[in-house]
Amino acid sequence: MSSTAGQVIRCRAAVAWEAGKPLVVEEIEVAPPKAMEVRVKILYTSLCHTDVYFWEAKGQTPVFPRIFGHEAGGVVESVGEGVTDLAPGDHVLPVFTGECGECAHCKSQESNMCDILRINTDRGVMIGDGQSSCGISTGYGATVNVAKPPKGSTVAVFGLGAVGLAAAEGARASGASRIIGVDLNPSRFEEAKKFGVNEFLNPADHKKPVQEVLAEMTNGGVDRSIECTGNINAMISAFECVHDGWGVAVLVGVPHKDAEFKTHPVNFLNERTLKGTFFGNYKPRSDIPGVVEKYMNKELELDKFITHGVTFSEINKAFDYMLQGVSLRCIIRMDG
Amino acid sequence: MSSTAGQVIRCRAAVAWEAGKPLVVEEIEVAPPKAMEVRVKILYTSLCHTDVYFWEAKGQTPVFPRIFGHEAGGVVESVGEGVTDLAPGDHVLPVFTGECGECAHCKSQESNMCDILRINTDRGVMIGDGQSSCGISTGYGATVNVAKPPKGSTVAVFGLGAVGLAAAEGARASGASRIIGVDLNPSRFEEAKKFGVNEFLNPADHKKPVQEVLAEMTNGGVDRSIECTGNINAMISAFECVHDGWGVAVLVGVPHKDAEFKTHPVNFLNERTLKGTFFGNYKPRSDIPGVVEKYMNKELELDKFITHGVTFSEINKAFDYMLQGVSLRCIIRMDG
Repeated sequence: MSSTAGQVIRCRAAVAWEAGKPLVVEEIEVAPPKAMEVRVKILYTSLCHTDVYFWEAKGQTPVFPRIFGHEAGGVVESVGEGVTDLAPGDHVLPVFTGECGECAHCKSQESNMCDILRINTDRGVMIGDGQSSCGISTGYGATVNVAKPPKGSTVAVFGLGAVGLAAAEGARASGASRIIGVDLNPSRFEEAKKFGVNEFLNPADHKKPVQEVLAEMTNGGVDRSIECTGNINAMISAFECVHDGWGVAVLVGVPHKDAEFKTHPVNFLNERTLKGTFFGNYKPRSDIPGVVEKYMNKELELDKFITHGVTFSEINKAFDYMLQGVSLRCIIRMDG
Repeated sequence: MSSTAGQVIRCRAAVAWEAGKPLVVEEIEVAPPKAMEVRVKILYTSLCHTDVYFWEAKGQTPVFPRIFGHEAGGVVESVGEGVTDLAPGDHVLPVFTGECGECAHCKSQESNMCDILRINTDRGVMIGDGQSSCGISTGYGATVNVAKPPKGSTVAVFGLGAVGLAAAEGARASGASRIIGVDLNPSRFEEAKKFGVNEFLNPADHKKPVQEVLAEMTNGGVDRSIECTGNINAMISAFECVHDGWGVAVLVGVPHKDAEFKTHPVNFLNERTLKGTFFGNYKPRSDIPGVVEKYMNKELELDKFITHGVTFSEINKAFDYMLQGVSLRCIIRMDG
């Protein structure tokens, strides 16, 4: 055990005091871990659109002051009573959702929505405490675990941020032959090519709804679509653009709390399927070590997602990069 | 070839001249079959809610005069040029949708929506001509081919008409342990027990939305639901009543043309799946002979669906039985 085990410790944190205002780096007190908790020394963190979403607090109940950072990597500093599967010094990825291993969800082969440890999507905080390599797993898993595009199929990806590009990477890894990126920002296309996107569609270039443009481009519709923006109109387009008979659309992006999904039910009766996913359907404890292994074996290329790096004291720059749409992932080094 | 082959023949038909008005039995002329067509002597027919739907013509473009009867059985009387897989005297079930065997849908393992021969759902007529054992295959197939309930699972069936009861029969055949019938008509429950329905829920008995009642009855939601009414609110309930993480809802009932399916997208993000089906995802030529074989082997009990019988001249009685909700299927004998 480290010398700080069992003690209240003082740490630096970037605190959000108010919606949309720069974070303030200050000292906070962190209590020792309670039963079944661990305390983690964060070495690196990143910033995800979900952080920005909760920081802007436009679509949900605002909760301030708060400390963001759910895409992190670190080392266990000390463990609470009853923790047997982790020990000080272990390298860990804190994940924003849990896996108790005992509930109906954890026992289901299909679900990863643990009854006891799942995130409360309305408040945006965890039942325990937690945080992940979240965006990449979410997008990649949405494709490989949920949409499951057959080899040679056509896949549309709505939104070419980190999650959408990870979804495209999943489509490429699955052997899809046409991967159509849909984004309002045409500058995304060049970057997206690295992730397998080989056609680009900007809805602003067309008067018709994007689902009609996609149907024309693909002789009736795409085989799979993955929606990574959270915009309700994009969700409807992503569903309606899949081919009747066999098309599957997967919703990933987090919608506004008042959003309403609307479509004519005949779009379902014509044998289209609509699914959603949470964290790419990965069970955090069972499945994430396998994802990390894929990275270590170079089967999964994560480095190309890292476009920027800042020190902790410069954390507000990471927000600026994301708001300007210039970064995919900006790594924040905690030692600086 | 019969002596009438190649001739225009005169036949009795029950003609619908106007929406909602009794059919008129009269003589009509039937042209000989064109290339790739066959002419069928109908021996028995039945009446399906879809006939009533197009007869009432409330939710679609009205097409009159017209002749109903898409759930029939008969014998090939003569065949047109190029027909090689059917010959006069063959016993056939005319089906309302086709299978060309060549298009992308026919080649897909998932779709049965043949590009060339599929029904035009707006007009309600076929590209060629056609008609089926339609309601039973539709409901049974929706469960066994699309919803695929695991053994021991809980299934809700919305609407306990012939299609819904066939869906329940599919759930029982799949080994579902709880089959909850949802219908506004409590007199349906007694009949429904024969088809495996072992719990009954009347939405009129509850102030809460039926999806909430079902969630309470089932510790969070049913594993599968099958919607067989076509009512848009029932469709929304059928989707929202499935368990998060793994629940799958299947839409079968034909909606009003102005219906709009609405739900909060978080219901999808919480890992629910919504699909629709057309004719139970059966490919008519490839799969229906197997369904008939199941009936002949007594694996599939169809006799219990037949509650009434009338002669052809009494055909309007079959409409009355269906409108009063007292019949499942009424067999119409063409020789009387």
